[in-house]
Amino acid sequence: MTAKQAIEFFEPSPRLLMGPGPSGAHPSVLAAMGMPIIGHLDPDFLRLMDECRTMIRGVFQTNNQFTLATPGTGTSGMEAAVMNMLEPGDHAIIGTCGYFGGRIVEMAERTGAKVTRVDAEWGTAIEPETIRDVAKQNQPVKLIAIVHAETSTGVQQPIEPISEIAKEFEALLLIDCVTSLGGIPVKADEWEADILYSGTQKCLSAPPGASPITLSEKAVQALSERKTLPNTWYLDLQKLEAYWDNRRAYHHTSPISMLYALHRALAITLAEGLENRWERHERNGKALQNGLEALGLELLAKEAVRLPVLTTVRIPESIDGDLLKSELLTNFSTEIAGGLGNLKGKIWRVGLMGESSTPDNVLFFLSAFGLLLRKHGFKADVTAALDSAAKTLNV
Amino acid sequence: MTAKQAIEFFEPSPRLLMGPGPSGAHPSVLAAMGMPIIGHLDPDFLRLMDECRTMIRGVFQTNNQFTLATPGTGTSGMEAAVMNMLEPGDHAIIGTCGYFGGRIVEMAERTGAKVTRVDAEWGTAIEPETIRDVAKQNQPVKLIAIVHAETSTGVQQPIEPISEIAKEFEALLLIDCVTSLGGIPVKADEWEADILYSGTQKCLSAPPGASPITLSEKAVQALSERKTLPNTWYLDLQKLEAYWDNRRAYHHTSPISMLYALHRALAITLAEGLENRWERHERNGKALQNGLEALGLELLAKEAVRLPVLTTVRIPESIDGDLLKSELLTNFSTEIAGGLGNLKGKIWRVGLMGESSTPDNVLFFLSAFGLLLRKHGFKADVTAALDSAAKTLNV
Repeated sequence: MTAKQAIEFFEPSPRLLMGPGPSGAHPSVLAAMGMPIIGHLDPDFLRLMDECRTMIRGVFQTNNQFTLATPGTGTSGMEAAVMNMLEPGDHAIIGTCGYFGGRIVEMAERTGAKVTRVDAEWGTAIEPETIRDVAKQNQPVKLIAIVHAETSTGVQQPIEPISEIAKEFEALLLIDCVTSLGGIPVKADEWEADILYSGTQKCLSAPPGASPITLSEKAVQALSERKTLPNTWYLDLQKLEAYWDNRRAYHHTSPISMLYALHRALAITLAEGLENRWERHERNGKALQNGLEALGLELLAKEAVRLPVLTTVRIPESIDGDLLKSELLTNFSTEIAGGLGNLKGKIWRVGLMGESSTPDNVLFFLSAFGLLLRKHGFKADVTAALDSAAKTLNV
Repeated sequence: MTAKQAIEFFEPSPRLLMGPGPSGAHPSVLAAMGMPIIGHLDPDFLRLMDECRTMIRGVFQTNNQFTLATPGTGTSGMEAAVMNMLEPGDHAIIGTCGYFGGRIVEMAERTGAKVTRVDAEWGTAIEPETIRDVAKQNQPVKLIAIVHAETSTGVQQPIEPISEIAKEFEALLLIDCVTSLGGIPVKADEWEADILYSGTQKCLSAPPGASPITLSEKAVQALSERKTLPNTWYLDLQKLEAYWDNRRAYHHTSPISMLYALHRALAITLAEGLENRWERHERNGKALQNGLEALGLELLAKEAVRLPVLTTVRIPESIDGDLLKSELLTNFSTEIAGGLGNLKGKIWRVGLMGESSTPDNVLFFLSAFGLLLRKHGFKADVTAALDSAAKTLNV
């Protein structure tokens, strides 16, 4: 390629992001991304890292010293958690009622540990008793892993009963909080959870590219007792912590701009107040769900375990789900997603995360989606949907 | 943490980045980072990915189909390369004449492959014959790995002779181009190299956070013939390629903003023209090096293998190297780095990479550094240094 073939400046179409992530970022977070680069060992940057650590502890509600952000997307946090906590000879029980639970299994199997998956129907949560039964028959259990908010099904897993089982069998408790952190209550210390990680591009509303993670003292102890080195060098948690703590040992060149953005997004999250933020996500999510049902649609996730931040909607038999999704993008520049794995072609996934979780987006979405459904012959009652949402929103 | 304890907006001090990376980013690259987020499967974003692939091929000078950017810093490219190409039963020979060669060894050892390191004194390049000797005694050889530009020593490794050996023993040739790509000639196809990766924050002058990587057909064939799955799931190259190619199979949420920046930085690099860009780095680097010698300082890297983009300077016995480095930061807001590993406390590392490689920075640096040396009693002749640099710069 020569200068003459140089590619033009890329300008993304403005989008309303109502898929399973990324969500829309606050303008101040985007502005932070554009600040000049400084070095990864610059005193200013080390202060930023310290403040990020403090704020990550804040959103996870933990006092864990061992807290940082891995230099990669949410999946890098999952890989760091799984590959560092497991090694050959370990036994792990992994709850799987969706695509992301299955991903933890795939990663865990690459460590050489023995892995037992405990399944539940997609759209439901894992029954704690099924985990207890497996644990009884396979002691000792090194690790029990569970997804808090399953992005593929819209299900919220109740954590307390799983935490009880982990204590009973003296297992480490690993919780995937990619889609939950900053949107629904995550209480690391109260749950006595040992390893929790998240993404930046869901309810924290930063761009994708880092993964907040925190380890309890018990997890840190387990790290130090490993007999083998972790599979991964890039995401070796002990090496990462040696950079994030006062040793400042060089490991990788931190994604500087990404941490500017994460810092700003965490500050915005904590300034809103976690309780307020959870309440906002709960209210908007519920309004959307009530509205969708009033449109005549059926939701996949059972009501008792339904996530407010990510709603899974069954595609009616008469409707081409991909076509509607694509018309929403083309006509209204609004992104939603289809189903993953078993649910491909069967559901839409509609997110209301972080900055994207607003009453405006609820009302707009019900209007636009209702219109498109009607265009394709599905008799959606848009007035009823808006009435129902407005009642929940109290507007 | 509550709203009242919310942390203030972070503003980095403006810095002149003349360390081993990150380098300064072009304002247009920074502006690209601040653009609104779109989805990782958005048609606009897929187009951006395609254009990035084309441009990454351009800077690597290759026609390799299998070309992408891993979702992490340069070290993630190294991990992807090493962990995907090696498995138990393989034998790898790794040239090590600096910190980063040693890092490849550490990663390779985690794959379970047999690893032979071939060392050379830090400050020199690897003697090809030493690799040939090891290869003869340990056939078959799966992989020969070498660092093109060793960021810890400032040495440029001649690639052609290593390439000859790889062909002779039918081994895959892996080249670390983190510090070379966009700054000195990298010619993947001409070298018949099989796996090459780089970073974004060195001579490409984007922020850190992605790693361009390219694989020859032979390397792709080797991937498909693996007997075991790679250690890593996050950086599993076959999964990454399935997202980057037309399959668009979901694997991770791409670091959207980082790819905006990479796209812009690649376009700027190719618009300048690779030959022009190499010539610029060569001229400015040589001017700095001549100036430093005229100041009375000694360079670590032997002249025949001296990198223009990263200069290693021996700290004179009478000088406290850390103090001088810190004064440069405090008084002139200019970053350079100290030595890594064996060279800690013994050298400074001064970078002239990408946007940071300008005649202005050469002259400013010689002036400021000369003044600080004089302040600490080292009789530096600043006039002679500027004269010498100006002569090389032809100004």
